[in-house]
Amino acid sequence: MDKIDLHSAVFATYAIAASLMILKAVAMSWLTVVRMIQVNGGFRSPEDIKKTPMNPQPNPSQLAPTDRVDRIRRIQLNDLENLPFFLVAGFLYVLTGPSLPWAQWLLYGYVASRLLHFAAYVTGQIHEVRATFWSIGSFILIFMTVRVLLAALGH
Amino acid sequence: MDKIDLHSAVFATYAIAASLMILKAVAMSWLTVVRMIQVNGGFRSPEDIKKTPMNPQPNPSQLAPTDRVDRIRRIQLNDLENLPFFLVAGFLYVLTGPSLPWAQWLLYGYVASRLLHFAAYVTGQIHEVRATFWSIGSFILIFMTVRVLLAALGH
Amino acid sequence: MDKIDLHSAVFATYAIAASLMILKAVAMSWLTVVRMIQVNGGFRSPEDIKKTPMNPQPNPSQLAPTDRVDRIRRIQLNDLENLPFFLVAGFLYVLTGPSLPWAQWLLYGYVASRLLHFAAYVTGQIHEVRATFWSIGSFILIFMTVRVLLAALGH
Repeated sequence: MDKIDLHSAVFATYAIAASLMILKAVAMSWLTVVRMIQVNGGFRSPEDIKKTPMNPQPNPSQLAPTDRVDRIRRIQLNDLENLPFFLVAGFLYVLTGPSLPWAQWLLYGYVASRLLHFAAYVTGQIHEVRATFWSIGSFILIFMTVRVLLAALGH
Repeated sequence: MDKIDLHSAVFATYAIAASLMILKAVAMSWLTVVRMIQVNGGFRSPEDIKKTPMNPQPNPSQLAPTDRVDRIRRIQLNDLENLPFFLVAGFLYVLTGPSLPWAQWLLYGYVASRLLHFAAYVTGQIHEVRATFWSIGSFILIFMTVRVLLAALGH
Repeated sequence: MDKIDLHSAVFATYAIAASLMILKAVAMSWLTVVRMIQVNGGFRSPEDIKKTPMNPQPNPSQLAPTDRVDRIRRIQLNDLENLPFFLVAGFLYVLTGPSLPWAQWLLYGYVASRLLHFAAYVTGQIHEVRATFWSIGSFILIFMTVRVLLAALGH
């Protein structure tokens, strides 16, 4: 069977993990929106304090930083530093022909590590907790990428 | 015909949309450069106010934030939060075997939404305008990703 | 031979370049960690100055910006603005069926440009040096993307 085919169990594993991570990344944007509405602030562009139907009583303080919004922005930046590379590394890793259990452990393990990282970060757990989950994901990403590199070098 | 082939009409649609979005993202970097030259500032690294042929009269104020440059940086950050995920989601969506009209509406619709988002943001339109275009793109991204997820789960 | 196959010399070239760039991006995260430990600061979340085994003597000044850490963050942001787009553009470029020498020059040239950009940035060279290496990478990215666009338009 072709390696790049949603009917392949290994590739479907990748596609599921990739879809979940993309939806997670998109959810951060929407969560930022939700929190900006909740605190009625945390905006970043000068034009966002113009009077409009959505912002009937604008105030310069709406442009001030606020941790409730900035926390989600930090989480999102962390996603940007990690997820795009996972999406490509996972795809190339599938091309190395891993067994299904290996693919599932690594790809779903990565998804789990990122969801736990989010849970730790959004609730303000101490750095050690969120660093642990981040590190697990990073090690999985490095492992898959080195595997691809070695396979490509030995072609 | 193979699904991943530039001779396939659906895949070519993806490749055109992806190329345009990559060029759009790269253009933001160059637009930042253009505006930094125009305002002779908006730099971010201490070494950028050393005297050099390109900066014969350096001044610490060149490191101060300036909205003319920062506006493009905000647009670019918005690109980073969206485009990499579109590039992967669009690729996986093509593997689900959509019809050509569906692929064209979604992929070119996304491109259009991002170009309109840029036009609204760069000219400082009220938040509602740029949020509308951003939302259209985000919904397309979510739709394609959920379609991939369902197809992969049902493999 | 299939174009997307680690046994294809052109695709293996892409996979090697992509792996190196992913590892480079991941290395920036770890280098940020190393430098945060070295300066015992440069943190960004309020909870990072809670007393913990890793931070036995917390101090609010640990949340202040510090160039030793922020320099790596700027380099990493520059990676985010470039590498994800290279990873996708390089993949699509391979599908246009380039000769092996062309693929090697462009893909390995991009990798070299980014490593030199890093070397110039991390050692604080004047802007002209790092801008030169950045521009070389950007031109390679634009070239590959335009090549993909033309191939897809002419399908």
